[in-house]
This record gives sequence, C-alpha cells and structure tokens, in this order.
Amino acid sequence: MTLSPLGDYLKTLRAETPLVHCITNYVAMNSTANLLLATGASPAMLHAQEEVAEFTALSAALSINIGTISPHWADAMLTATAAANQHAIPWVLDPVAVGATRYRQTLCAKLLDAQPTVIRGNASEILALYGLAGQARGVDATATTGQALATAIALAKRQRCVVAMTGEQDVITDGNTHFTLAGGHPLMPRVTTLGCGLSALVGAFVAANTAAPLGASAAALACFAVAGQRAGNLAQGPGSFQVALLDALYQLTPDDLSHHAQLEALHAA
Amino acid sequence: MTLSPLGDYLKTLRAETPLVHCITNYVAMNSTANLLLATGASPAMLHAQEEVAEFTALSAALSINIGTISPHWADAMLTATAAANQHAIPWVLDPVAVGATRYRQTLCAKLLDAQPTVIRGNASEILALYGLAGQARGVDATATTGQALATAIALAKRQRCVVAMTGEQDVITDGNTHFTLAGGHPLMPRVTTLGCGLSALVGAFVAANTAAPLGASAAALACFAVAGQRAGNLAQGPGSFQVALLDALYQLTPDDLSHHAQLEALHAA
Amino acid sequence: MTLSPLGDYLKTLRAETPLVHCITNYVAMNSTANLLLATGASPAMLHAQEEVAEFTALSAALSINIGTISPHWADAMLTATAAANQHAIPWVLDPVAVGATRYRQTLCAKLLDAQPTVIRGNASEILALYGLAGQARGVDATATTGQALATAIALAKRQRCVVAMTGEQDVITDGNTHFTLAGGHPLMPRVTTLGCGLSALVGAFVAANTAAPLGASAAALACFAVAGQRAGNLAQGPGSFQVALLDALYQLTPDDLSHHAQLEALHAA
Repeated sequence: MTLSPLGDYLKTLRAETPLVHCITNYVAMNSTANLLLATGASPAMLHAQEEVAEFTALSAALSINIGTISPHWADAMLTATAAANQHAIPWVLDPVAVGATRYRQTLCAKLLDAQPTVIRGNASEILALYGLAGQARGVDATATTGQALATAIALAKRQRCVVAMTGEQDVITDGNTHFTLAGGHPLMPRVTTLGCGLSALVGAFVAANTAAPLGASAAALACFAVAGQRAGNLAQGPGSFQVALLDALYQLTPDDLSHHAQLEALHAA
Repeated sequence: MTLSPLGDYLKTLRAETPLVHCITNYVAMNSTANLLLATGASPAMLHAQEEVAEFTALSAALSINIGTISPHWADAMLTATAAANQHAIPWVLDPVAVGATRYRQTLCAKLLDAQPTVIRGNASEILALYGLAGQARGVDATATTGQALATAIALAKRQRCVVAMTGEQDVITDGNTHFTLAGGHPLMPRVTTLGCGLSALVGAFVAANTAAPLGASAAALACFAVAGQRAGNLAQGPGSFQVALLDALYQLTPDDLSHHAQLEALHAA
Repeated sequence: MTLSPLGDYLKTLRAETPLVHCITNYVAMNSTANLLLATGASPAMLHAQEEVAEFTALSAALSINIGTISPHWADAMLTATAAANQHAIPWVLDPVAVGATRYRQTLCAKLLDAQPTVIRGNASEILALYGLAGQARGVDATATTGQALATAIALAKRQRCVVAMTGEQDVITDGNTHFTLAGGHPLMPRVTTLGCGLSALVGAFVAANTAAPLGASAAALACFAVAGQRAGNLAQGPGSFQVALLDALYQLTPDDLSHHAQLEALHAA
C-alpha cells in the first residue's frame, strides 16, 4: 500500500477547514487551538454533558485527551465518543500518562471500547494502553518508539485503528502497513502540550481525508516534523520555538510537506 | 452625538488600571489576562459560587464569556451578573457560539435578562442572540457584520445596551448612534480567543469610562484594530502575530489611537 | 549560615529533572508548564480526587496555587498535601489573592495546617496569610516587600517553613536567615501568572535540593531575576518579553546564575 503525496492531505484540510471538537486538558487548550488554526483547521472546545453530544454531531472530528480528567469530563468524553460513533465522525484518543494511575487506566479501557479511529501517544503510553486489555504491566517511562514498535502494531491490529506513536522517530501503523517518520527538533519536548495539539491535528487531517486515516495521520505528524525542524533552526530556546512553530505551520505548503517529510515504509516482522 | 477623541478613553484606562473580573472560557484565560495587562488593565479570574459575588463587588467591571460553560460556571455567571447589577458595576456579555446548542441559548436568554452593559460578538452570534427573544432562527455562521447590521441595532435598542459586533468591519451601536470601524489584520482570525480577550478589554474601557459605554467600547475595539494592523505588518504568521499584538497594545499611546483609528459615524436606516 | 553558590542548585535540578505535580489555576497552567520545562524540570497537572494522592506520591514536589479554586479543587489540594506529607515530598503554597475573599482565607488556613515547605507570594498575600492565624486584618494591595519584611520573617518562624516573598525586591527567609534579591524587570508584572510559575519552579528546586529549601528557593527566585533582566533587555513589550524569558531560562547556566544573582544576606531586627 502506498500513500498519496502527503501534501494532498494538507490540501484537502486547507480547503475544508474541518471543525474539530476538542475535549482536552486545561494545559493544552490554548496551544491546541492555535496549532489547529495555524495549520488551517477550525478548533472548538466545549465539554458540558448538557451540549456535548449535540456539538459533536456538528463537528468533522472529535479529539479526546485525558490529561486533566475528572468525573464530569470523563462522562463527557464517553458521551461525545458515542455521538461520534453514531454519526460516523472520526475520533482520536490521546491517552496522556495512562500508565500513571488506575483512574486513567479505567477510563482508557472504556475509551478503547468506544473504538477510536486513531490513537496518538508516546511509546510509554502505547505500551501502557496495550497492557490494559491483557494483564497489568509495568510502564517504562523512558521507552523509545523502537522498543514499543511491536506493541504499536499489535495495538493497531487489536483495536482496528491507526496508531500514531511519536518520539525521536515516529511510527504510524494500521496494523498492516507501517511507516516511520523522522524530523522534528530536540526543543519540541521542552514545550508543553505539543503532543496534545498534534493529536487534535490528526483529527483535523482525518476529518478532511476520511477514507484514508493512515495517510492522514502520517501527514499530520509530518507537518509537525517538517515545521518543527524549521522552527528549531530559527529558535534560540523554547520561547522562540513556539512562535516559530506556529509561523512554520502557517507557512507550510502542500509541496513543502510532500518534498521534505522523511516518511519511510517499514517492513516489520 | 460625537465621541471624545478615542485616546481619551485609553488615557483614563491607563490612569485607573481597572480591575476586571473575568469569568471566561478555559481556552481564553491566559491570553485574555495578557491582553488586559498589555493594554493597561488588571485582570482577575475566579468563578466559585462561594466567592464570586464577593469578588465582583470589589471589581470595576465584569466580563462574562460562555465559551466552555458547564452548570457550576453558568450558575456563577448568573450570581456574578446579579452582584454587578446590585453594585452598579458594568458588565460585558460574550455569547460564544450561542447559536450552536440549546444549552447556550438557554443560558444566554438568562444572561440577557441580567442586562449586560455591552454585548460583544461576531455577526453570527449577534444574529443568534437577537433570535432568542423571538422565534428560533437559523444562524448563518458565515454572516458578515454588514448583513447583521440591522439586527445589531435592533438588539442594542431592545436590550438597552451597547452592541460591539466584530468582523472584517466592526460595528458599534447603542441603538441610536452607530459607528463602523476598519483596521485589524487577516491573521487575527488565525489566533484563538482574540475576540474573547477583546470582550474583557471592552469591560476595562467601560470601567474606566462609566458614563460613556458607547465611546469606551469603540475605543477598545479601536485598540485592537490599530494594534492588530501594526502587529500584522511585523508578523510572519500567527505565532509572531500574537507576540507583536501584545507589544503593540503595550506601546500604543492615546495619541496613536486618536489619530489612527478608522472610526466612522454610520447613518443607518 | 551561608548558601552554596546558587548555580549548584540549578545543576542538581538539571541533573534530576524533578517531576513537579502542579495543582494550579487555569490561567497559569500552560505558562507554568513551559517555565518549568524551559528551566529543566518536568511538570504534570492533574487534580481529580480519584487519582491525586496516587500521583503526588510519584512526584518529587507538589505545588499548590489557589488562583481559580472551587470545592472539588480545594478538596484535591488538601488530599494532595496530605499525600505529600505522608511521603515526605516537599510542597509549595502560592496563596493567590488570599486577602480578597473569605473563601480563600478559609482554604489557606487549612493549607497552612498542612505545613508547606515553602510559601511563595507577594507582599500583600504574605501579610494576609499571616493575619489568618491571628485576628483578621486589612490587606494593603500596594504593600511592598520592605513593609512586609517583618511579617514574612514572623510567618516563616510560626509556620516553620521558608517564605519567598516577591516584588521589586524579593525576600527569602526561613525565620532565622534572611536574604534579599534584586533583579527582574518592570515588564514582569505586565505578564500574567509569572509568579504562579515561579512557585512551581521553587518546588522543582526544592525537590532537587531537599536538604536545603532556603537556598533552593533563593536559587529559583534568582533564575527569574537574572533571566527576567536579560529578557527585559531584549523585549519591546510584554509579548516579546514572554518569549525572551523562556529562552533566557533555557540558556541560563549554573555559572551565570552564581555570578549574576544579586543576592544579599539581610540582618533584620
């Protein structure tokens, strides 16, 4: 299986400016909205049980991030994912720190049952998430995406979804076809909630390319990888990096993305 | 009716550094606080039913934004607006996405009953808000301020308040006297929650110019229009725009504002 | 008593990248996380009663900030401080606007009972906090750290903790040994929640230097004072100041900190 040129996915996103309903953590809300707007999507944040299903139904994608959950928010997430499924709206799960507490594990088990279209997490989160359905297992917070590769593939297969695992080298897989992606910059982990924003951006790309969630996910990660590299070249620290990243995402053209993304097919065991 | 030179309203704001109690959405909180501080006002965010009335009474203005409402927050908004009215403190309503869900419509109907001093919204929100008191009506999300002009004036008349409607061209009206305002920059809609911050800034201007809510609202919008234009000239994308906007608001002098604001009296039917 | 060179505390922070559990206000969350990451610590924000104790136990420090409290959050703060005490994890109290409402005063009295390792606040907050255990007293919102010096020392003695009082001139005291610290920049109060972020950074420094909370607190404040001065020299307003501050904290070396911090021993009556 080959993907379309990555720029094609960005072209449809820019043409459709998909509305992405984000139920995300407090830390990430502002930066997520700005990352989506800079790239060309339209974010909306709301979470009250009283309106969440009604609003999800109006959206082109739903992005769920469990960073600062509490009971009302967890309920809203489950209501929204049910609405997404009912209306065939793609949704993305970002299982922030799922290995850290039992509360997170319990909620993520329920969210997995609600069949995310894409799971976006780091290696530790992917390992922890996979363990939820089997026996409990320790989570190595310093796991690399290489160490977690087999688990990412197994998770995608088991959940019948795309897994987009980010780290120094990203992995994108639907369980059958796999890609690695290089790029980005060492300053990226020094800026908070970029990963959270990326999850919502995956939602935007999938919304604008519903027939191709694997390619759309790869294109979203590639935007961050290419724009992140450019921002890193201009930055003097994490403050100027944030500014340069938003500018770079805004300036990124479909051709840029197609030509500079370091995406490679991966032939895994 | 003629207004004072717009710079005069900024002069009083800078002299008084009014405390603006903001009950606003999670996405907007940080950027709203920074926009107020940059311009010369003093923001405070708190919302617990246990303290909200006590704090509103200490404030020079109250700014209510329904972006990420939930029941406790909605209750706090109603308590705070009642306290504002009791103590003759001006308050601003920002009816974010009021047309999107019934929950928002119900809350906004109650907030309208609490008699805002100023309503600040985009054309779609003004159209939706006006419809609340009459029959339900469809909301055109792509409405322009030109299309919504008559409705903005009718809303101001009916609610006996100022309506500050923002878009490519802003409209400010108290139902009898109307102004249009040009300026700003196409990057502004690519940065999240600038409108939310502007609503709170309207609160600050009205607090420092309580006898002249129409002129004060025009001056607040003019700050954004002039500073936004300058920031846009310096920016390379939405990241550098945000930085430049805060700097431009900080650097803006009363004379600048008076001379560069593109405010015009409007003789509407 | 003499302190180690201040750079030594930064060296240990960078080596250990301590995990700081922040239960802080909505306005400050994103900027606090970025300030910690830029300096070299690892932030985490979560607050649900269902997981807060479990997570505090995994952390190297806890930072509590009451800016946007509500009942569930207040309960979580008390649960988390109890967990911190049980596991001998240092914790920092930031009593935002404690003088403003009775609700804040009541919560802070309970938090004082939970024995913070460090209290970080401005002069008005330190005066109000001290008054809680005695008779109620008026709070002068324009108090300087000079006027509040004796109270800061008395508070540190009474609570057996470090008090880090910030303003134009900072004061750091454990009730017996006192220091003043100059530096920073007049733009700092024009950026929201820098003080909130500093409180969390104090937590990070204390976590990496558990045997020396007084020196660690001084080092945290000195980072802000030195980096703030540098950022101020580069900035054209509060927008570019924020960017430059994150870059300066990132670039700050232990030697820089030791050589440029304007810390002086204070011989108070």
